[in-house]
Amino acid sequence: MTLETGIITLTTLQSGLESRLEAVRARIGSLVAADFDLIDTVNAHLLQMQGKMFRPTVLLLVDEAAGTMDPRSVDLAAVVELIHLATLVHDDSVDHSVLRRGMPTINSLFSHQVSVIMGDYLYSRAVIELVHLADLEPLRVLARVTNEMTVGEMRQLLAHDRLRYTDEEYTLLIRSKTASLLSGAAECGVLTAAPEIRQAMARFGDALGMAFQIVDDLLDFTQPESVTGKPSGLDLREHKVTLPLIAALPQMTAAQRAAVDDLMATPSPSDDQIAAVVAGVTEAGGLVVARERAQHYAERAEEELALLPASPARETLRASLTYVLDRRR
Amino acid sequence: MTLETGIITLTTLQSGLESRLEAVRARIGSLVAADFDLIDTVNAHLLQMQGKMFRPTVLLLVDEAAGTMDPRSVDLAAVVELIHLATLVHDDSVDHSVLRRGMPTINSLFSHQVSVIMGDYLYSRAVIELVHLADLEPLRVLARVTNEMTVGEMRQLLAHDRLRYTDEEYTLLIRSKTASLLSGAAECGVLTAAPEIRQAMARFGDALGMAFQIVDDLLDFTQPESVTGKPSGLDLREHKVTLPLIAALPQMTAAQRAAVDDLMATPSPSDDQIAAVVAGVTEAGGLVVARERAQHYAERAEEELALLPASPARETLRASLTYVLDRRR
Repeated sequence: MTLETGIITLTTLQSGLESRLEAVRARIGSLVAADFDLIDTVNAHLLQMQGKMFRPTVLLLVDEAAGTMDPRSVDLAAVVELIHLATLVHDDSVDHSVLRRGMPTINSLFSHQVSVIMGDYLYSRAVIELVHLADLEPLRVLARVTNEMTVGEMRQLLAHDRLRYTDEEYTLLIRSKTASLLSGAAECGVLTAAPEIRQAMARFGDALGMAFQIVDDLLDFTQPESVTGKPSGLDLREHKVTLPLIAALPQMTAAQRAAVDDLMATPSPSDDQIAAVVAGVTEAGGLVVARERAQHYAERAEEELALLPASPARETLRASLTYVLDRRR
Repeated sequence: MTLETGIITLTTLQSGLESRLEAVRARIGSLVAADFDLIDTVNAHLLQMQGKMFRPTVLLLVDEAAGTMDPRSVDLAAVVELIHLATLVHDDSVDHSVLRRGMPTINSLFSHQVSVIMGDYLYSRAVIELVHLADLEPLRVLARVTNEMTVGEMRQLLAHDRLRYTDEEYTLLIRSKTASLLSGAAECGVLTAAPEIRQAMARFGDALGMAFQIVDDLLDFTQPESVTGKPSGLDLREHKVTLPLIAALPQMTAAQRAAVDDLMATPSPSDDQIAAVVAGVTEAGGLVVARERAQHYAERAEEELALLPASPARETLRASLTYVLDRRR
């Protein structure tokens, strides 16, 4: 593994892309605008809580690294982020989440009803914009991805309260839930490139997304509230079973396992119960397995970059793997 | 108005279309199939509660009457019904409805979570199928329609507990909520026809949809539970303000108005409270206004048919207007 070391932030990755990302943000704003007060109020809140623009960043970097320089990239990046936003709004509603990135969710601030409708609104706006681009290819990629994400959400429902949830099921879950859209974002950056480049970038996005989600699940075990903006152990609190726990379970002592059973039997676990399970998962090696798995996917992603010509953008894509592995939030 | 009299049932309208409608049903079944147990379980329930196929019927009749005989009509009809199903699943979740056509809703039988995800699943499957058809035109029509329907759902939220809800707001609401998809269905039946035919059929579907929804709202005031399969006065029970009430309010006596205020101030109104408001709306002429409005839209729809050549299918489209006006459920 030749990944660089040192602190790589999202700002590092986005350096040089600022004006295009600003154009993406403006495009999202115009895509969601409505002639309807309630929708515009929700939009204003959504755009305020807008996130790291990681998916648009990947799309624009892939476009640059492959030398395609597709004039539609800003539009495509806006659509990909819009689909991401639509998914977040529905996910928060499905999970009854109260906070997202330290800000109140749409379902908590407005209502469950508004969230369901707003997610549909955003997604249908994304489809309208794709039709405007008058090319079936991005529609083909993103319609499939969106459908995969819904299957991922369904899988997520089954990952609750299920200590027999397997590594294979987890892998299918995060592939459909997270990796699919990053794969679609990367592929949409090279729609006009040769098929082998397009396929390599789809695989790059997939592996990057797998690493991204595994690290996300790992951070839930390792990061305190002040850094993640959400309570540490939130997944455990909600009885969500992720890789660190799946990997640790077979290695646990009877006492460690009892702490897990205890937590799963408690509808609203206490901080102490969560701390006990975090300790057990750590001691039984669950964090190490998850860490290694994330590194494995980052290496696979790196291999896919070999097909691209050497360029600063390719190096930034390489650096994005370090960012994903090393991020603290 | 030259609309035929006599009892016209949906079976009358669908006579001769049976094999194509059977093909539409089979197509829907194959479009929603998943390699995932929970989704297939929900699908089985959804297809069991599948409704009257009114939208596919309109699409196929328009296709036949215009002589386009588009080989994609069965696929397009399946997609339109799939979008309709996706909308119903989300609507029932938003409204916390327990029954639909006398059968338990997805949200009541499974969960709110499953409903949100399942609606997204069905809609993204519809988009995938539209991409398969490799033509941007139906995508253009149906993406716009779907977006309009979400705006309609948002408008619906504001039609609760608002006695100042106006006739104009109601008209915008039912146009986006109901007429838009029937307009899209009719337009998708003539995508290969001349632009003036396409526009006329879009207007036909719009006017048909307006009449359809007004009659639906009227039936809520006039039909007992055994016929509609849902409690009479359900809209009033949920404080939904529709045309009969909007039209009646300015004509009401103080006592009639007091009954309305009383109902709106009661979170779960009794049968007696509902009966009092139904009586007040009837006496103040609300039902007559709604009935006349529905007839007005049916006449507008009929005028659009003049552009089509005389044919049995055109007569059946004409009969569909009588069906919409005279239906009891």
